[in-house]
Amino acid sequence: MARLIEILCVGTELLIGKTLNTNAHWLTKRITSLGGEVTRVTVVKDDVMEIAHSVQEIMQRNPRLLLTVGGLGPTFDDKTLEGIAEASGYKLEVDNNALKEVETKYRRYVEEGRMEKAELTPPRIKMAKLPKGSEPLRNPVGTAPGVMLKYSDTTIVALPGVPSEMMAIFDGSVAPIIRQFADDMTFFESSMLVTGVVESEIAPIIEKVMRDNPHVYIKSHPHCEERVSRLEFHLSTTAVSTKVARKRLSTALAQISELTVKKGGKVKPIATES
Amino acid sequence: MARLIEILCVGTELLIGKTLNTNAHWLTKRITSLGGEVTRVTVVKDDVMEIAHSVQEIMQRNPRLLLTVGGLGPTFDDKTLEGIAEASGYKLEVDNNALKEVETKYRRYVEEGRMEKAELTPPRIKMAKLPKGSEPLRNPVGTAPGVMLKYSDTTIVALPGVPSEMMAIFDGSVAPIIRQFADDMTFFESSMLVTGVVESEIAPIIEKVMRDNPHVYIKSHPHCEERVSRLEFHLSTTAVSTKVARKRLSTALAQISELTVKKGGKVKPIATES
Repeated sequence: MARLIEILCVGTELLIGKTLNTNAHWLTKRITSLGGEVTRVTVVKDDVMEIAHSVQEIMQRNPRLLLTVGGLGPTFDDKTLEGIAEASGYKLEVDNNALKEVETKYRRYVEEGRMEKAELTPPRIKMAKLPKGSEPLRNPVGTAPGVMLKYSDTTIVALPGVPSEMMAIFDGSVAPIIRQFADDMTFFESSMLVTGVVESEIAPIIEKVMRDNPHVYIKSHPHCEERVSRLEFHLSTTAVSTKVARKRLSTALAQISELTVKKGGKVKPIATES
Repeated sequence: MARLIEILCVGTELLIGKTLNTNAHWLTKRITSLGGEVTRVTVVKDDVMEIAHSVQEIMQRNPRLLLTVGGLGPTFDDKTLEGIAEASGYKLEVDNNALKEVETKYRRYVEEGRMEKAELTPPRIKMAKLPKGSEPLRNPVGTAPGVMLKYSDTTIVALPGVPSEMMAIFDGSVAPIIRQFADDMTFFESSMLVTGVVESEIAPIIEKVMRDNPHVYIKSHPHCEERVSRLEFHLSTTAVSTKVARKRLSTALAQISELTVKKGGKVKPIATES
């Protein structure tokens, strides 16, 4: 319960197939490696009521953290904060710290010759209008600050959708929070490739190994190339120490190997990044 | 209302950052080009109750079509049909047509020398256990059939998660349904690149163009490369004829161009696929 995290991606471009959701992929990978657990990803369009309804639905599931991605910029279709305000009842108002940050950014852009005027037009002020009680999060690479607010037992963090900005604010402001509430739990993974047996033959083996190793999550990924069946198994566990995790994974891997070879299959470990 | 579609992706690998959700990207693009509208994408893990709860939540929004992706195979972690059965109250039972299809597939695999035995083991029979009242959908490239069932006013279609199988069943069995209920509506899009103005300067322009062209959806995508601001604008519309669509898009494009050039910016059209 304490580690549960939901992600809400806001952007019509994700629902018309214009943009591949690499932000959700990056975030789920980072969060998992920090010891957090993402239980759901939801994607909605740039519409205040759609955002508000989905935020309310997510709040009913009471996650520890809700990360929204996208919709923080200056344009008409950036509606995430309006949606959060609608869902939470916290009215949008100009935050002085956020406004100062936005102003400083535009002054710098003018100094660097990227634009002519640093004046705070309504679209620019919009980026500093936050739900009452929010805290702006420094955006080291772009203009719109991230936004953090507490709502009931959940911390809501709104991140911009531009990947470099999303990543920078996540690493600077969100990762430390997850690390803290994940209680030093860390994620470990291992993969193996099985050939010579098909998925339906190996199903009972995996079922047995899962029963015998309750802390290890095993997922099979069938690949069928040139009529040769190849199965990739991905084993993962979240543990307090590297030693515990390694022991869990190696026990499960050894058991799968042994049972697969008995069925006439071949097993090969696959190197993973982390 | 009549065109609304939701997608439910099932797979823990999508929530731990192991797999990039290219299936959702492909489906949203295809559905949009067929004239359908995807209103939400939800991603949940391989857990019967998580799947069941999300199906129930989606059914409350009463979409015309719910597409689930993933979790149809023979292994322990393929739980989508169990989740749909739990949500709908339609019990799982062996479907004779589906069983025949699965059996034929394994016979062929044996003939092709890909495996030794064609016998119907419990994991293989599992793929033919469908919610009562379902119709199996032919899988021309893999083993597990797709599944279609009516529930209230919604058609639920369960697709496998292996991309080639998902695509083949979608094109063979789902695309014709969407084409039919989309009433010959088709999706059109156009993109343009704006340089020399920043996002906050162009916001009022787009707001005006959106108001003047209510059937055209405009989305801005800021790119910042080597400190030069580049804005991509993606315009799209769903219309009954190419003529209507072209006219709508060209009117909106012309207006953006005119207003942007007045602000000192430059506009260049971008070629799009469709």
